[in-house]
Amino acid sequence: MREAPRRPAAEAFLAEHGRLVEEALDRHLPSVDTPPQIVHRAMRYSVFAGGKRLRPILVIAGAGVAGMAPRDILPAACAAELIHTYSLIHDDLPAMDNSPMRRGRPTCHVVFGEAMAVLAGDALHALAFELLVRTAEHPGCPPERIVRAVGELTRGIGTAGMVGGQVLDMIAAGGPPDEASVREIHRLKTGSLIRACLRIGGILGGASEADIEILTRYGENLGLAFQIIDDILDVVGEQAKLGKETGSDVNKVTFPAVFGLERSRQLADEATRQAIASVEPLGPRGTHLRDLALFLLQRER
Amino acid sequence: MREAPRRPAAEAFLAEHGRLVEEALDRHLPSVDTPPQIVHRAMRYSVFAGGKRLRPILVIAGAGVAGMAPRDILPAACAAELIHTYSLIHDDLPAMDNSPMRRGRPTCHVVFGEAMAVLAGDALHALAFELLVRTAEHPGCPPERIVRAVGELTRGIGTAGMVGGQVLDMIAAGGPPDEASVREIHRLKTGSLIRACLRIGGILGGASEADIEILTRYGENLGLAFQIIDDILDVVGEQAKLGKETGSDVNKVTFPAVFGLERSRQLADEATRQAIASVEPLGPRGTHLRDLALFLLQRER
Repeated sequence: MREAPRRPAAEAFLAEHGRLVEEALDRHLPSVDTPPQIVHRAMRYSVFAGGKRLRPILVIAGAGVAGMAPRDILPAACAAELIHTYSLIHDDLPAMDNSPMRRGRPTCHVVFGEAMAVLAGDALHALAFELLVRTAEHPGCPPERIVRAVGELTRGIGTAGMVGGQVLDMIAAGGPPDEASVREIHRLKTGSLIRACLRIGGILGGASEADIEILTRYGENLGLAFQIIDDILDVVGEQAKLGKETGSDVNKVTFPAVFGLERSRQLADEATRQAIASVEPLGPRGTHLRDLALFLLQRER
Repeated sequence: MREAPRRPAAEAFLAEHGRLVEEALDRHLPSVDTPPQIVHRAMRYSVFAGGKRLRPILVIAGAGVAGMAPRDILPAACAAELIHTYSLIHDDLPAMDNSPMRRGRPTCHVVFGEAMAVLAGDALHALAFELLVRTAEHPGCPPERIVRAVGELTRGIGTAGMVGGQVLDMIAAGGPPDEASVREIHRLKTGSLIRACLRIGGILGGASEADIEILTRYGENLGLAFQIIDDILDVVGEQAKLGKETGSDVNKVTFPAVFGLERSRQLADEATRQAIASVEPLGPRGTHLRDLALFLLQRER
C-alpha cells in the first residue's frame, strides 16, 4: 500500500515552487520603469495580485515526472501564469463578466482603464509565447520539444480550449444551466489550460508518450475537480476570505447551480480520486501530483 | 544599371501570392460550422474583410530571398495576417479607437458585440502561433528556425513592438503631436510587425545572417513609408474609396499632422528609396522587394 497523500508535503511543494515562480515572473516581466511604463504597470499589477501560481506549478510538476529540474522549466512555467492572467484581465472587462474586484483588489480595467486592460492582456499573451520559446536557452530542451509545446499551448487556449469556453459561458449566461453545458464550459474554460500545463511540462521535460498520456488524464480530472471546488467556494465562501464578490457567478453556469452543493462536493471528490488514480502507474514519480490533487480538494480559497 | 522597379510585376506578385494566402487562410481558420460557431464567424468576418495581405506577402518575399517556395511558408504567412487582424479588432473597440467602420464595413464589435470582438481577437492571436509552429510540418524547415521565428514574432508584437505602439498612441491622443513621438509610435505600431514579417520569412527560409540584416533594414524603411502613406491617404482619401471614415485619425499622432502633406510625401519617397537601396546587395533576389516598395508608395488604398 502506498502512503496517503500528505497535505503538509503538498503545502511545502507549493510554497517552494511558488517562490521560484514568483522570482522568475519578476525577472521576466519588463520593469515598471521600462517604457511604455503604463502598460508594464498594468501587467505587473495583475500578475502580482496574489494568485496561487497553480498553473506554473503544474508545468513544473509535469516536467518533474520526466526528471527535469524546476529551474530549467521556469520560463515555460511563467508562460502559463501569464496566459492565465491575460485571460482574467479580459474576462473581467465590462463587456465580458464586468467584474470590478478580484482577489480583494480592483480589477485591471478599474485601475488602468479599459483600453490599457485590453492591451495589458494582449501584451501578456504575446510575452507568454516569448517565455515559452526561451525555455530553449536551457540545456537539455531541444527545439522539437519547444515547437510541440507551443502547439499544445495554442490549442489549449484557442477556440477549442480556453477562449472557446469563455465564448460558451458568455452565450449561456442568462439561459437555464444544464448538466452537459456546465461540463463542457468548465472543460474548455479551465480544464484545457490545466491539461495543457501538465502536457507542456511533460513534453519539455522529455517524458515518454505513455507518461504524457498519464499527465493528460491527471490534468483533465484535476481541472474538473479544481473548477467544481472554485464554484463551491464561490457559493459558500465569505467575500473577504475569497477576495472577490461572492455570488458574482450566480447568473452563470456553475456546478452548484446545476447539481446542488452536496452533489457538487461528491463530484469534486470523485474527480480528485480519479486524478490520483491516474498517476498510480508513475509510482514515486507521481507523489507530488497525488499530494497536489488532495490539497486542492481541501483548499479554502 | 538595373532596371527600374516595375509596377505591373509588383501587381502580379501581389495578386498571385494574395490568392495563395487567401486560400490558406480559408483552410486554416475553423469553419463557421465548428462550435462555438459565433466566435468563428466573428474571426472570419474580420479576416475576410478585404485586406491587402501585405504582411503575409512580406513573409513569403522574405523566405523567397532564401529560395524557399511560397507554398512551404504559407502557415507562417497566415500567422502574420491573423496577428494583424487581431490587432485591428482590438484597436477598433469602443475603449480604444472606437471605430464603427473599417474597409467599408461595420467593425467586428459592431456586428458581434464587444465581448465577442475581444474573444475573436484573442483567438486569432493564439491561432497565429499555432500556424507559425505548423510551418515545422513542411520539409526543410528545422525546429530551431521555428523557435527563433516565434521569438521574433513575440518581440514584434509585444510592448517593445505593436502593443507598445498602440499604448503610446492611446496616451498621445489629445496632446499636441511632435516629430519624435509620431516616429516612435509608427515605428512600434506598424513598423515592428512589418519588420518581423520580413525577418520571420528570412529565418524560416534559412537566409544568411547578412541577408536577414538586409531584410531588417528593408522592413524598417518599408514600414515607415507604408505608414506615412497610410496617414496621407487617410487625409486626402475619399471615404468611399478608402472604406473607413476619412479623417478618423485627425486627433491622433500622424505624419501629415506633424509634417504637413508635402513634407510627408517627401518622407515617404525617401523611406521608399532607402528600402530599395537596402536590398541592392541581393541582386536579382531582391527584385520582388524593390517592386513591392515602389508599388506601395504609389498605392491609392
